[in-house]
Amino acid sequence: MARRVVVSAPATIANLGPGFDVFGLALSEPADVIEARLEGSEIVISSVSGVGSDRIPKDSSENAATIAAGKVAELVGSELGAEFVIKKGIRPRGGLGSSGASSAAGALAASELLGGKLDEGKLIEAAAYGEGQVSGGEHYDNVTASIAGGFVIVASTNPLEYFKLEPPAMKIVIAQPEIELATKNGRSILPKEVNLKDAVANVGRASTMTAALKGADIKLFGKHMIDSIAEPVRAHMVKGFVEARQAALDAGALGAAMAGAGPSVFAVMGPSENPEGVAKAMKESFESAGSKCETIITSPGEGAKVLSKEE
Amino acid sequence: MARRVVVSAPATIANLGPGFDVFGLALSEPADVIEARLEGSEIVISSVSGVGSDRIPKDSSENAATIAAGKVAELVGSELGAEFVIKKGIRPRGGLGSSGASSAAGALAASELLGGKLDEGKLIEAAAYGEGQVSGGEHYDNVTASIAGGFVIVASTNPLEYFKLEPPAMKIVIAQPEIELATKNGRSILPKEVNLKDAVANVGRASTMTAALKGADIKLFGKHMIDSIAEPVRAHMVKGFVEARQAALDAGALGAAMAGAGPSVFAVMGPSENPEGVAKAMKESFESAGSKCETIITSPGEGAKVLSKEE
Repeated sequence: MARRVVVSAPATIANLGPGFDVFGLALSEPADVIEARLEGSEIVISSVSGVGSDRIPKDSSENAATIAAGKVAELVGSELGAEFVIKKGIRPRGGLGSSGASSAAGALAASELLGGKLDEGKLIEAAAYGEGQVSGGEHYDNVTASIAGGFVIVASTNPLEYFKLEPPAMKIVIAQPEIELATKNGRSILPKEVNLKDAVANVGRASTMTAALKGADIKLFGKHMIDSIAEPVRAHMVKGFVEARQAALDAGALGAAMAGAGPSVFAVMGPSENPEGVAKAMKESFESAGSKCETIITSPGEGAKVLSKEE
Repeated sequence: MARRVVVSAPATIANLGPGFDVFGLALSEPADVIEARLEGSEIVISSVSGVGSDRIPKDSSENAATIAAGKVAELVGSELGAEFVIKKGIRPRGGLGSSGASSAAGALAASELLGGKLDEGKLIEAAAYGEGQVSGGEHYDNVTASIAGGFVIVASTNPLEYFKLEPPAMKIVIAQPEIELATKNGRSILPKEVNLKDAVANVGRASTMTAALKGADIKLFGKHMIDSIAEPVRAHMVKGFVEARQAALDAGALGAAMAGAGPSVFAVMGPSENPEGVAKAMKESFESAGSKCETIITSPGEGAKVLSKEE
């Protein structure tokens, strides 16, 4: 039972092409960091700083991290009074699971303050609850990857069943255009029904990607990173997406797709390839479509973890 | 270039739950055998014998094996005159890829008579053409498994891309009730559109099965062998299917599903488990629903192969 704990939870990419609501990948960076200490009788937020922090609720009843922390206390069956310092490393609403990472960090911090009693599955449930309260629906792909790390396959959500794979070494280039989308809107435009042939195509590609990942075949993995269900609908919401995706492929990426509901686009490359050219091509593509754009060069990473702890 | 060749091509299970039109598994038995020899200037059938042979066309323009053989000659760019002796080991229209195996055997036999010039992908294309002509549409799951062997993932059909996994040791129990369905009808009742949530569920399960197969986790593989798209619609066409599937699970199978478009039902078990009880339970279940039923105990196997050859 810690008095004070510092935890981090990574940004994540959901969907990865055909794995809509199924695949999630934890990144080595960026990450959100939460410092939490036992204090008082309620969970409160003392500060929120970092990327986009002006758009993050400071009220603990509206913040994904503290909502997830409250859920942890409920699952453990304990009261929890704590003060949270939230440091955002992940841009909110950028498509990299920002609220999912905050939820994951909040859940882990609370669990540590309460003695670390929750297993990974319960931490994911608490984090999904926190993320669901702020995004308008529980989605497990981002939070499962942010808690468990690596590449995750969410096989079912009720009950929660997931499978974790250790991804092979690869480079990931992310382009974040300055276009803001709420996950809520990205989801509401999806059809309730999809063509059988599109469903079959996604099953074929997702299964191939899974097999490729196990065989460390990044080329095959990237090649099948194509979605016939959500991405074609969402592509119209992100100006310049189609061109940026193509620019990444033309510059040598092995595959590229929308990260989650966007607007970020990500591309995968082998571990020894140079990602700078791909990053430049994606950035220039979005800029020529009229959007400022930041790029991040990262890689698969581990899940939420304790950085330091005082007993 | 052989004068005379004897080849076999195995029965296969398509779909395996969530992998509708994507997953195929070759079986160690039963199989179709074709003896073919160079003769005359056309491809003709001299005899068809074996299981259900009275229902197999003897006219080479209507038989899947000889249509596939003709396609091979076309792809090679040669004339082919040959006499085919077809020995059916696989019950026609039973759900175990009977026409796919005949096509696979016919394609391999023709290729051998013409010097073995076709690679695996071209053999699959020829076999898919033969199967498609008799079943009313090209489906690659059965023929790809029957040619390539093992567990196959058909990632796309145009162009054909497939991925082959060596399945771990397992036992497979098949119950074949005496209910006859044409693949044509099994397909025409499928909806053109499916629920997004059902598509997501299938992607999650199919990916998990792929990961499980690579990890030799038969329990996880069997558990996720559930289809939300085709099987629920087709279940109504096979009287006693739901009960036989449940009987297999109750008797200790790790998973059970419809084989292809049915009527056969198959169940998977670990390599050291005793399949007799599961076979008995499935048989009794179909019999109490009013259908005679045969059972087959088999395992994953290799693809179409040359049994003997005379140069």
